Amino acid sequence: MPLTIAVVRERAPGESRVALVPETAKKFAALGATLRMEQSAGIESHLLDSDYPEVAMVAGIREAYGAANLILRVNLPSTAEIEAMPEGAVLIGLLKPFESKERLAALNARKITAFALELLPRISRAQSMDALSSQGACAGYQCGLIAAARCTKFFPMLTTAAGTIRPARVLVIGAGVAGLQAIATCKRLGAMVEAYDVRSAAREQIESLGAKFVDTGVHADGTGGYARDLTDEEKAQQTEKLAKAVALSDVVITTAAIPGKKAPIIITTDMIARMKYGAIIVDMAAESGGNCALTQPGEHVVANDVNIHGPLNLPSRMPTHASELYAKNLYNFISPWIKDGELTIDWSDEVVAGTLLCKDGVTVNPKIREIMGEA
Amino acid sequence: MPLTIAVVRERAPGESRVALVPETAKKFAALGATLRMEQSAGIESHLLDSDYPEVAMVAGIREAYGAANLILRVNLPSTAEIEAMPEGAVLIGLLKPFESKERLAALNARKITAFALELLPRISRAQSMDALSSQGACAGYQCGLIAAARCTKFFPMLTTAAGTIRPARVLVIGAGVAGLQAIATCKRLGAMVEAYDVRSAAREQIESLGAKFVDTGVHADGTGGYARDLTDEEKAQQTEKLAKAVALSDVVITTAAIPGKKAPIIITTDMIARMKYGAIIVDMAAESGGNCALTQPGEHVVANDVNIHGPLNLPSRMPTHASELYAKNLYNFISPWIKDGELTIDWSDEVVAGTLLCKDGVTVNPKIREIMGEA
Repeated sequence: MPLTIAVVRERAPGESRVALVPETAKKFAALGATLRMEQSAGIESHLLDSDYPEVAMVAGIREAYGAANLILRVNLPSTAEIEAMPEGAVLIGLLKPFESKERLAALNARKITAFALELLPRISRAQSMDALSSQGACAGYQCGLIAAARCTKFFPMLTTAAGTIRPARVLVIGAGVAGLQAIATCKRLGAMVEAYDVRSAAREQIESLGAKFVDTGVHADGTGGYARDLTDEEKAQQTEKLAKAVALSDVVITTAAIPGKKAPIIITTDMIARMKYGAIIVDMAAESGGNCALTQPGEHVVANDVNIHGPLNLPSRMPTHASELYAKNLYNFISPWIKDGELTIDWSDEVVAGTLLCKDGVTVNPKIREIMGEA
Repeated sequence: MPLTIAVVRERAPGESRVALVPETAKKFAALGATLRMEQSAGIESHLLDSDYPEVAMVAGIREAYGAANLILRVNLPSTAEIEAMPEGAVLIGLLKPFESKERLAALNARKITAFALELLPRISRAQSMDALSSQGACAGYQCGLIAAARCTKFFPMLTTAAGTIRPARVLVIGAGVAGLQAIATCKRLGAMVEAYDVRSAAREQIESLGAKFVDTGVHADGTGGYARDLTDEEKAQQTEKLAKAVALSDVVITTAAIPGKKAPIIITTDMIARMKYGAIIVDMAAESGGNCALTQPGEHVVANDVNIHGPLNLPSRMPTHASELYAKNLYNFISPWIKDGELTIDWSDEVVAGTLLCKDGVTVNPKIREIMGEA
């Protein structure tokens, strides 16, 4: 069956990314695919319909999805959007596989073949498809900028005629892709940066960015590049060692998230009570509840003169580049399976199999089956 | 007469700075001065009353100003505040000498000896007192951060598994203290920075920060380190040469202000029409009307998908350091005249005479007399 790819405007509140950019549209067209896109789908990413000469622009969701057999998304579609998809279509996106039982059921009802990029195996061949990493880099950069913009001090050391300003002290907790980008951004701006992660590999990466590693003595390497849950004893030790670094910081950025789970509380109310007046916390884990006990997702709260920011959907703040990187991830994931305008997926491929969420009406991924009670 | 210094909470909307910080309070006390401060005057700068052990905290403006003979301010006091000042008191601050005829009359009615730091001679001995420079550095840094945070692209070049992101293009117009700090901040973040100024000395300063100088062929050196007004012919030439650089930029930061005058329009609506979709303008001259034809002071407007920000009172966004630098400027200005707890000003001193706005009921500064119609 000839391949028809469809993309609609993302309707999640505050979402400004788009799953197809002019560069990837051109490449898909060169592989023989037909492309349909809802009008103005790229507008929030500052892309005009005229920037996509290879794409047929159509008026709405049903017009876009109607004849499609490959649907590219940023976010999990709504139930109504899923109902507009042709039975058996292939769907790829950041589908939040741990979150919505209802929508997963809707996908299965339409027999959608859904790939959730959150499930992508973190192996080296799949790096160019790793949307969590590309969007994490955007999020970490934005966190660094939010921290600098909200801080009541200069980040860099400044020597002025009226005296010398000392650099601000920044502590970054969690040194995954996002945390490392936050470290790099704060270092670029001239701050004195310390960072902490429970994964033992993080120390070298932190130090290679010129930041100081905070050693709590707690090491908790888990699977897939993530940390495992800490024991109560380890948590107590971590809290004790981190409290001092937190108290000395002008800015604390927290990025410790565990996929499919509530984020661990790392910054306790006790720690906040001992922070400097006017200090800033930027909690990047706000989307999964937050690493700080007082974080309100999407809000800015003040406690003890400490400003706690819980920003949501950070990549959407820089949609030009976030969309560009994300669309390339999608292209890199699916293009190996497009030959002469047809989609022929090798289901035995490790990357394909690992990322597959559901197919032919069945939730395939064992972890998701377990969480969703289908096991 | 023994010296009593008074400071109250600044009441201008959005103002979070304070004219006295713990470090300068301690130094004034060491010179024998008595200090009175309105309760919680430092709170917006994250300074508690208990941070000022040398200062007597009092309940209101009248209690603070009542027995004072030296009053330190950030902004021009209101008429009511001026009426609370003892006759003949000395007042120092950023008094906006060009702006309010009414308040100038109120100062003269109370026979206040007022020093407006905007009038400070820009000579090398006075650099440590230069509040326009210290606050300009804060403003320029904040402009750079606003630009980065609002830009829909990364500032730095990024090499990711999904491809390389090219650095953002930033154009800074006006390379005074604020412009240079904006350049430095954008460069730190990794952007490709171009800059322009009509003053011929600016080229070297721009290039020393690693930015590229945009040569329009227009040179307009004025007095006191500022540019003179351009002729219509020069303006046309400037517009033509700048238009191309503006059209290529992801971010344009404008900082061209002339004290006591409306800011020149440098970015025309025609230029905006030719800018990239999603580009950003941060207009630091918004307080004096703006360098961009569409700027709305204090607002964010969108025209042709270009986002035009006209932020006001930028130093107030980083009150910890802005207050620290400003308070040091005040201390450096007045402390040479404090001996054994008494204030003895040498009226023939170049810095004193240049900065003096009014004294004994008369507006002294000739330029202000002229503007205010008192000449």
